[in-house]
Amino acid sequence: MPPLTPDETRNPWTVTSREVRYENPWLRLVHHEVLNPAGRPGIYGVVSFRNLAVGVIPVDAEGCTWLVGQYRFPLDRYSWEIPEGGAPVGTDPADTARRELIEETGLRARNLKEFLRLDLSNSTTDETAFCYLAWDLERGESEPEETEQLKVRRVRLREALDLVLDGTITDSISVAGLLRLKVMADDGALPPGLADAVARGLAR
Amino acid sequence: MPPLTPDETRNPWTVTSREVRYENPWLRLVHHEVLNPAGRPGIYGVVSFRNLAVGVIPVDAEGCTWLVGQYRFPLDRYSWEIPEGGAPVGTDPADTARRELIEETGLRARNLKEFLRLDLSNSTTDETAFCYLAWDLERGESEPEETEQLKVRRVRLREALDLVLDGTITDSISVAGLLRLKVMADDGALPPGLADAVARGLAR
Repeated sequence: MPPLTPDETRNPWTVTSREVRYENPWLRLVHHEVLNPAGRPGIYGVVSFRNLAVGVIPVDAEGCTWLVGQYRFPLDRYSWEIPEGGAPVGTDPADTARRELIEETGLRARNLKEFLRLDLSNSTTDETAFCYLAWDLERGESEPEETEQLKVRRVRLREALDLVLDGTITDSISVAGLLRLKVMADDGALPPGLADAVARGLAR
Repeated sequence: MPPLTPDETRNPWTVTSREVRYENPWLRLVHHEVLNPAGRPGIYGVVSFRNLAVGVIPVDAEGCTWLVGQYRFPLDRYSWEIPEGGAPVGTDPADTARRELIEETGLRARNLKEFLRLDLSNSTTDETAFCYLAWDLERGESEPEETEQLKVRRVRLREALDLVLDGTITDSISVAGLLRLKVMADDGALPPGLADAVARGLAR
């Protein structure tokens, strides 16, 4: 694809007023009055996040990973996912990835590599997710936060991927992360030291 | 994975009050006072969407697809994506997929198949995305909405996937959709009539 032209880098929306309508420790809702790209008046409510979303896929020497189950309040249902957490904007999301991995699964990772960034819901929010692969793992005790009531399950990567493909796992970070891991494994694009374990874990 | 136990299907959060704090035609922000799973008081702000997010990956006989570029106001930057739109809750998202495809690209699809559902940002929102494959395409005129200032580009599926893998495409629906299409193609899981075109489009 050719690079963006100067016209494409210019914001075609004009903001005529901006007001914070709601705020809590995790997000802020900002109501904008705007002129849309056609020059007509309108409104735009934007949800701005104080944290980056962080996801991490741990892989052990046998090609197993860990899934975390929890009741997701906004969805009003249960959800199985890769370990995830929030990194305050301005901090290193890799630190959050390591910390969440320990809290939720008890795993300490000697190797961690960012392999995916996502804009989760770009019609309305500025929420960005960073996703990591973690390997060379040491097992310890998990330390869940009290707001969380988590189940943790060690499964082969093949099972995790099948749960994506059969529609059981629907969390966007988990779906994109597990699919990307599969495509990178098939492309020979994984770091040595991880590639063999992933190949073992994905074999049918 | 074993089926959910009765305990897992129960919402461990207790809502003690609920108040709509912001509302516009697209979303509603609801502030909850809660008891968290540990029984302690807290708050939970949930962004509730009036539309389902809909994405659609059109594939023509040569294995090309269409990408749409637009300035995303919440991100304050330009984004290349698969064609997307919003389906009012209660309507058939397949109708939205067909309509958005015509509006943004001028393509009419004789075949449309849902192949992916995502919860986009489940720590805070209830936004769900439905993603479709569209094939047997007829080309016509596009009919963009005035709030949109779109660029449309026909590219080989291989190029679209490479834009995911090199981090140019970061929209969650586009990333998950294009990766899933690749995995389904490799698994022989695509409908006949689409599989050959996708294989042509993905070849290096």
